[in-house]
Amino acid sequence: MKALEQRIQEDGRVIEPDILKVDSFLNHQIDPVLMQEMGKEFARLFANQGVTKILTVEASGIAPAVMAGLALDVPVVFARKSKSRILSDDAFTADVYSFTKQTSNAIRIDKRFLSADDHVLLIDDFLANGQALLGLKEIADQAGATIVGAGIVIEKSFQPGRQNAIDAGLENIHSLARIAVFEDGQVKFVNEEA
Amino acid sequence: MKALEQRIQEDGRVIEPDILKVDSFLNHQIDPVLMQEMGKEFARLFANQGVTKILTVEASGIAPAVMAGLALDVPVVFARKSKSRILSDDAFTADVYSFTKQTSNAIRIDKRFLSADDHVLLIDDFLANGQALLGLKEIADQAGATIVGAGIVIEKSFQPGRQNAIDAGLENIHSLARIAVFEDGQVKFVNEEA
Repeated sequence: MKALEQRIQEDGRVIEPDILKVDSFLNHQIDPVLMQEMGKEFARLFANQGVTKILTVEASGIAPAVMAGLALDVPVVFARKSKSRILSDDAFTADVYSFTKQTSNAIRIDKRFLSADDHVLLIDDFLANGQALLGLKEIADQAGATIVGAGIVIEKSFQPGRQNAIDAGLENIHSLARIAVFEDGQVKFVNEEA
Repeated sequence: MKALEQRIQEDGRVIEPDILKVDSFLNHQIDPVLMQEMGKEFARLFANQGVTKILTVEASGIAPAVMAGLALDVPVVFARKSKSRILSDDAFTADVYSFTKQTSNAIRIDKRFLSADDHVLLIDDFLANGQALLGLKEIADQAGATIVGAGIVIEKSFQPGRQNAIDAGLENIHSLARIAVFEDGQVKFVNEEA
């Protein structure tokens, strides 16, 4: 998605060999107009696939997911994070390891909001190692829901997230911006998906 | 706002004397269409007041804030929560006590995203004791920003949040739904603001 790639070039900051900060428009300060454009693009990519619900993880996934939900006219459920995995009859839960923070969090979704009748689209802000996406997949699997695919805002293609997700059986992964490499503090993109 | 009051009547659940669960459309599962209507209503309430930025707190404030930002065409910044208040040269911080959880959290906003030139609108999902709103006000004050007002999705008018906010100097507080009382598990509203 060209508008997103341009924004990353203009306002993203490469602060370590493999860290991209996009907190000026995506995950701390948010540009609502860009979010809406992204939501429409997700809706285009996953049109006519029978999506009944969007799943994401708090907090950074919420804005793009809600805009996608608006464009697809389906509800959004954001998984809540907690320090420990409290098994509960009321919730689907999964563990998510963060390589950045080197800690594990649990994520949970109330069972009232996900069922075997659902066709879910998973949305997240970043795909790096794929742990959050795999956690959402695990929760959808627990519910017996059908996973239509995954929509990612920014994919770091030089990290194993996409392959990990494919290995876990996830199909139909679309990223709005795919970063091939950081070179001298600059961002180089993989050729955009059609 | 009638559509919100109706939704609270239909889908809200009073689970304790003073707790209202609205996790089926606001703070776990999200109805994006309702969020957009709320965003437009916030934009109407705070039109022509020179708002340059919206501040909210993760995670439940993000969806209404982003929709308000879209309608007002201004950026949104969501404060991040953390367990402890780490004083930093890079961030404005405040402590927020949660009466529900009986714990204190710190909230932080990066200094790059708030300045004395800003005219900010504070948005949050609930106003009960007003602690989150006061934390956002404290952060705006640290930045020297002008506070235009506060937009709340659901106010529990039988709790002291509004008075606490007024006592702290906050003006122009608008709530889309003002709950007067819970009676026999039913929600009674204060007459809606014009």
